[in-house]
Amino acid sequence: MDKVVNGTVYLVGAGPGDPELLTLKAHRLLLHCGALVYDSLLPQQLVNLTSNNCERHFVGKKRGCHSVPQSSTNEILVELAKRHKCVVRLKGGDPFVFGRGGEEAAYLRQCGVEVKIVPGITSGIAAPAYVGIPVTHRLAGSSVTFVTGHEEVEKRHSTVNWRSLANSTDSLIIYMGLHNIRHIGEELIGGGLLYSTPAAVIQQGTTEAQRYFVTVLGKLADLTETEHILAPSIIVIGKIVAFQVEDCAPTPGMADIPIMLYE
Amino acid sequence: MDKVVNGTVYLVGAGPGDPELLTLKAHRLLLHCGALVYDSLLPQQLVNLTSNNCERHFVGKKRGCHSVPQSSTNEILVELAKRHKCVVRLKGGDPFVFGRGGEEAAYLRQCGVEVKIVPGITSGIAAPAYVGIPVTHRLAGSSVTFVTGHEEVEKRHSTVNWRSLANSTDSLIIYMGLHNIRHIGEELIGGGLLYSTPAAVIQQGTTEAQRYFVTVLGKLADLTETEHILAPSIIVIGKIVAFQVEDCAPTPGMADIPIMLYE
Repeated sequence: MDKVVNGTVYLVGAGPGDPELLTLKAHRLLLHCGALVYDSLLPQQLVNLTSNNCERHFVGKKRGCHSVPQSSTNEILVELAKRHKCVVRLKGGDPFVFGRGGEEAAYLRQCGVEVKIVPGITSGIAAPAYVGIPVTHRLAGSSVTFVTGHEEVEKRHSTVNWRSLANSTDSLIIYMGLHNIRHIGEELIGGGLLYSTPAAVIQQGTTEAQRYFVTVLGKLADLTETEHILAPSIIVIGKIVAFQVEDCAPTPGMADIPIMLYE
Repeated sequence: MDKVVNGTVYLVGAGPGDPELLTLKAHRLLLHCGALVYDSLLPQQLVNLTSNNCERHFVGKKRGCHSVPQSSTNEILVELAKRHKCVVRLKGGDPFVFGRGGEEAAYLRQCGVEVKIVPGITSGIAAPAYVGIPVTHRLAGSSVTFVTGHEEVEKRHSTVNWRSLANSTDSLIIYMGLHNIRHIGEELIGGGLLYSTPAAVIQQGTTEAQRYFVTVLGKLADLTETEHILAPSIIVIGKIVAFQVEDCAPTPGMADIPIMLYE
C-alpha cells in the first residue's frame, strides 16, 4: 500500500439491459460518480446518466480489437480512486454472477482501495422473464442451476459435469454457452435428459433487439445455427420452459446492447 | 371470462429487502398504482411509497394466523383489475424465483386479466453479496444451484436429490432450508461433499437486522440452532464462501423485514 486512497470504487450491477431494471442505488451512483469504468455489454443509455464532468473510461471490446486486459482495468480503478471520491465500475447483470466481481473486489482491497458491491438483476433470470418463462415453478421441480460455458474455453478443458447435472438439477440456465451448445446438448442427453426436454434461447434479452426461440433440447444446437443466434444469449433447458406464459412478458426496454463478435 | 377486465396486474419483484435495491420500474409502478397486494416478506418502506389513494391489501401471515390462501389472493387480484388500471402484486425478491409468479401469471391470463412480470433482485444473490460472498468465482467453479427446501414440506416427500447435487454443482444457494438443514447437510456429505466444505447462513440479508455466520458444512445445522437463526435466511454452501471479501459488503438498507414465525 504505497498511498492512502480516499475514493470508493462501487462495483455496480447494471442489470440485463432494460434501463428500467436498474436499481435505485445504481441510478443514484451513476448520477453522482466522478468517474465511470464500463465495458461492452451495457446500453449507452446508462452511460449517458453520468454528468458531463464524469471521467469515462471504456474498457470493453472494440470492433476487431481485444478488450482491455483485466489487470489494466484493475490499475485504472486504483488510479481513479486516488482522484475521485466515487468511482463506478459498471458491469452488465450482477457483478457476482459470472462477472468477476469477486476478483476485482479482492484486488482493490489488497491495494487499500475501499470497494462496495451493488447487486444488479442478472440476465439469467430477467431474459427468460421477458419472454414469460419462469426460472422456477413448483410443478417443474425445486432447483435451477446457473452455469457458464465460457470458462471452459479459457481453462481449455471441461469444468462442468454436464452428465451429472442432467441427473440432479431440475432446470439449467446457461450463460455464454452458444459456442459450446452442441457439445452441451449431447452431454445432457448422454446424462439422461430426453431429446424432447423443453429448451429456449433468448438473444439480447430485455432489450428492443430481443429475439427468442422455444424448441427441444435435441434440436437446440441446429436451431442456434439456422437462426443465426448471436451472443449475448441465455439458454434455458428444462420443464420450466413449458410453463411459459408468453402474455406476461413485459415490453423490452428502449436500449441497445451490442452483439458480441466473439463469445 | 365473464367480464372484460381493463386493468393490468403487475407481478413486481421488490428485491431482497434494502429499499435501494428496488428497480426504477418497480419504483415507478408503486408510486402510480391504484391498488397494491402484498405479503409478509416486504419492508414497510416500500408499501409506504404508494399514494394515499392506493387501495392496499395485505395477504401475508399475521401473528398466530395463516396467510391468505393463494386462491383468495388470485381472486382479489382479478377483482382489483376490474376497478383499477394499475394493480401491483408486490413480492419479495423476484416473482419467478421461488415466488409462484408463474402460477399467478397463468391464473390471471386464464381469467382474461392482463398481467406483466417485473423482475426483482433475488435474495439468493443479494444476501450473500451483502456479506461479501460472490455466488460465483472463477476459481470456485462454473456453476451455482438455487434450490428451495420449502416445497419438500408441502409435497411431503423429498423432491431434491441432494446427494446427486453434491456431485454435480460447484455451489449451492438454499432458500427456505433452515427447518431441513440437518437432513440436507447429512445428504450432501453422504453424496461426497467434505465435512469441511465452507458454508454460510445469512438471516434477513440486506436489511439492518442482517446477521450471518461462516462455518463448515459439518457444523452448519448445529450452528443454526445454537445461534437461533430464524427465517428468512439464505444458506450458501461451497468454495465460493472462501472467496468472501467482507469489506466489500455494502451497508444494509434502512428497512425491516419481519421474522417468519413458520418457515
